[in-house]
Amino acid sequence: MDKPGIVVTGASGRMGQMLVRSVLESDQARLVGAIERPESPWIGQDLGQAMGGAALGITVTDDAVAAIAQAQAVIDFTAPAATVAFAELAAQARAVHVIGTTGLTAADLDKIAAAARHAPIIRAGNMSLGVNLLVGLTRKVAAALGEDWDIEVVEAHHNRKVDAPSGTALMLGEAAANGRGHSLDDLRTPAREGITGARAPGTIGFSAIRGGDIVGEHDVIFATAGERVILRHMATDRAIFARGALRAALWGQDKGPGEYDMADVLGL
Amino acid sequence: MDKPGIVVTGASGRMGQMLVRSVLESDQARLVGAIERPESPWIGQDLGQAMGGAALGITVTDDAVAAIAQAQAVIDFTAPAATVAFAELAAQARAVHVIGTTGLTAADLDKIAAAARHAPIIRAGNMSLGVNLLVGLTRKVAAALGEDWDIEVVEAHHNRKVDAPSGTALMLGEAAANGRGHSLDDLRTPAREGITGARAPGTIGFSAIRGGDIVGEHDVIFATAGERVILRHMATDRAIFARGALRAALWGQDKGPGEYDMADVLGL
Amino acid sequence: MDKPGIVVTGASGRMGQMLVRSVLESDQARLVGAIERPESPWIGQDLGQAMGGAALGITVTDDAVAAIAQAQAVIDFTAPAATVAFAELAAQARAVHVIGTTGLTAADLDKIAAAARHAPIIRAGNMSLGVNLLVGLTRKVAAALGEDWDIEVVEAHHNRKVDAPSGTALMLGEAAANGRGHSLDDLRTPAREGITGARAPGTIGFSAIRGGDIVGEHDVIFATAGERVILRHMATDRAIFARGALRAALWGQDKGPGEYDMADVLGL
Amino acid sequence: MDKPGIVVTGASGRMGQMLVRSVLESDQARLVGAIERPESPWIGQDLGQAMGGAALGITVTDDAVAAIAQAQAVIDFTAPAATVAFAELAAQARAVHVIGTTGLTAADLDKIAAAARHAPIIRAGNMSLGVNLLVGLTRKVAAALGEDWDIEVVEAHHNRKVDAPSGTALMLGEAAANGRGHSLDDLRTPAREGITGARAPGTIGFSAIRGGDIVGEHDVIFATAGERVILRHMATDRAIFARGALRAALWGQDKGPGEYDMADVLGL
Repeated sequence: MDKPGIVVTGASGRMGQMLVRSVLESDQARLVGAIERPESPWIGQDLGQAMGGAALGITVTDDAVAAIAQAQAVIDFTAPAATVAFAELAAQARAVHVIGTTGLTAADLDKIAAAARHAPIIRAGNMSLGVNLLVGLTRKVAAALGEDWDIEVVEAHHNRKVDAPSGTALMLGEAAANGRGHSLDDLRTPAREGITGARAPGTIGFSAIRGGDIVGEHDVIFATAGERVILRHMATDRAIFARGALRAALWGQDKGPGEYDMADVLGL
Repeated sequence: MDKPGIVVTGASGRMGQMLVRSVLESDQARLVGAIERPESPWIGQDLGQAMGGAALGITVTDDAVAAIAQAQAVIDFTAPAATVAFAELAAQARAVHVIGTTGLTAADLDKIAAAARHAPIIRAGNMSLGVNLLVGLTRKVAAALGEDWDIEVVEAHHNRKVDAPSGTALMLGEAAANGRGHSLDDLRTPAREGITGARAPGTIGFSAIRGGDIVGEHDVIFATAGERVILRHMATDRAIFARGALRAALWGQDKGPGEYDMADVLGL
Repeated sequence: MDKPGIVVTGASGRMGQMLVRSVLESDQARLVGAIERPESPWIGQDLGQAMGGAALGITVTDDAVAAIAQAQAVIDFTAPAATVAFAELAAQARAVHVIGTTGLTAADLDKIAAAARHAPIIRAGNMSLGVNLLVGLTRKVAAALGEDWDIEVVEAHHNRKVDAPSGTALMLGEAAANGRGHSLDDLRTPAREGITGARAPGTIGFSAIRGGDIVGEHDVIFATAGERVILRHMATDRAIFARGALRAALWGQDKGPGEYDMADVLGL
Repeated sequence: MDKPGIVVTGASGRMGQMLVRSVLESDQARLVGAIERPESPWIGQDLGQAMGGAALGITVTDDAVAAIAQAQAVIDFTAPAATVAFAELAAQARAVHVIGTTGLTAADLDKIAAAARHAPIIRAGNMSLGVNLLVGLTRKVAAALGEDWDIEVVEAHHNRKVDAPSGTALMLGEAAANGRGHSLDDLRTPAREGITGARAPGTIGFSAIRGGDIVGEHDVIFATAGERVILRHMATDRAIFARGALRAALWGQDKGPGEYDMADVLGL
């Protein structure tokens, strides 16, 4: 069987270039297209040369319809409006759509669900194997330990990140809350500042550290009298997210229409 | 129902006193005896006064037969020879025997197994809830992650500890090896010193840190390209081991003869 | 020379009992008094028996004047109003006053300064050797590293703590700010929650973790592209604060009137 | 003044390519040459194209004499024999020689010292700002804290590293020993395995963790009863070593002949 042809969206961005490199390095996939917004200076250039390297024979395009029509998968870490549009195009082409875009609204998710009736869509806030494993462990540990074990989620990211806590920290908090039969909305405590009073039992606290170029670190701390259990994930190379997305694109090749997440891809 | 009567062995030692305090603080158990070696200066003294406090009405004794005959449970963190003898006495008394003693030989374990035909024996290298939970997590994570994830166990203990790695570190290493379908003997790498060559894939490494009065800290590190998952336990108060042992003694009250461990007690 | 006689205030509290034990264990000081509030049930009891142990021959008193009159030092971790009163009594008795009380207002500090004209007063937000060393290191490192190194202070404490960040975290932040020629007020960022925007260069961030019975842990993180320096202190036993206070009381015996801090005591 | 012209040795290796990129990205230096061994397949190729990118107009050469004759600095992370030869050529050209090569023998160092009579040589086992800062802090803290604070050095590196402990760990251990008025040879304890006995006071322990692609992490732990101070460095991007080496090459431009290290370059 031929290697699946992959289209990367937002190809000029930091994550886009990482995705391009992952596909080029893989011996299980072919890069067949690179999409950018019409106003990007990369439009019309050879992708390889635009990235500062040798020519690849792929011209960066803003014609998403044509690019996606010839693809078996679209890997997409862009912005909500673009992602919704790509979901429809991928559905028409019966191509797998891997979505790493964050900040999607309920309305966006409805449109994505509609597209998933025609082709597989794999969506995750974090594509790393380790983080998705940690989510499952967090749920189990929260369920195994009683409420005399306080739960805290601590995350660290680079100094350009504009929101806190991270989407992954919230995903871990949600898993902890679920493990105790609650939703995170019931248990979440805002970051502590000033006179907070003693910690309310059963709540889940969050802390956000920002500095340098930290790729992403997450600790789930379970603390009781005399002991602590800490589940920790460290990402030190953004390439793990690109490799995870490519793995999802390959995994989806023989799947039917529907919505999937990384736990499905990783078999967790 | 009456509260079970507990006998503590090695009552004058640091761990023995910790066990005495745990029983005294509990509203679910009564302290009914305290055993020491014949040469101990505590023999014949009131236990409370020997501990520097008020009288408790319990005289420290070297008559283990009489002390255990009246007990529903014996909690025992002493030495192998003593522990084997206590196992036989507890079996005769149909009392639960909780064993935290380490360094038992295969011959010792055979005798303990024989005693367990008459009464419940609960034995664990580490009585903390957190560590026993970590053992289970380690097995699962080792099984879920491929051999491209290197496994390292790092432990830290106080500066009086005489052996390395700790029994708990080896228990974690064994769990990791089992998760990958091996025994630890196949995969264990000695502590690194000098020219070691590159790390052999699939092996499990150990590091031992010694300093101050660290009660016990264990990290199981899973490291691959670009990311790490770390499972960590910190004990900051030796009382957690005493509380775990008491919990085991109470849990065993309605169990039949047999050998149990903390995973049984904790329902993990 | 005689061993200095020490009075402990707030003797029935957790920190008060810790102070009593430190003095009793020391071979360089004698315990000569224990003060409590008039409404304390310990008033009139023997201190040792009230603590659950053998009699010490010291009756807990609310007569601070008489107790302090016979002392060479007062060790005091109570509350602002009481501390101001003790400062005046200690000054009259020419006794060293060691103050671990927090939450003192500017007006309180003025009264303490007035008392310090007659006797040595040693005051610190944290009496541990390690923390006071860390403060000095933080100032030096902040000065040595340029503003392309982001500074974050992360602290963890037990779940009963009612304010955030800790006084020690603020002391570390102030040292970092001073190292860069600023006051902390200029650089301090509140705990992050929601849409914060990118990190502003030169600011100092704070995070507060709460759980279990954590005695106190502080990290000062310096993060830039590709590397981090972290200065960390862990307190695992509240006794270090009591031992530090006793060390201050002994150090102050041959000092003249004036205000001192732990950097003076420790010779840092 | 013209930007200094830099020659990179071992240009085809991972560190060599990192150095090339650092020079290309800098606006304070020009790349003027790239040296490889005669048997390298890169010899005669354009450097940029050999690295998989666009042509740079620099041909990779094995003619070190000609390449170095036209340079103001040579940056060299190769092997001892090559480095000694480059030191002589750089001295003849009065070019700054930055040496990151490890494993140099006493005889090699003698030859390097001889070369340094003619031109500046800057040599360091670790070119990062953070590590060199940590070395200075370690010396100070070891001097400030008494022998009741145990010292341990823990390092983590990728799974291809062939020796333990790392050169940087030994540099930190040497600084700690010096801070206490000793040399490391007097105090160094080998990695712990088996029955070690209790920790000998005043010794310095080492642990080496190996896994994944960890760039380099070093902890210096000072542990005593009830508290710990930990000085930690994390390198997450090998580019910091290349940037440090380039910084050294630029710093050396107006220096006289002699041997220098990174503390000189960084003004620590």
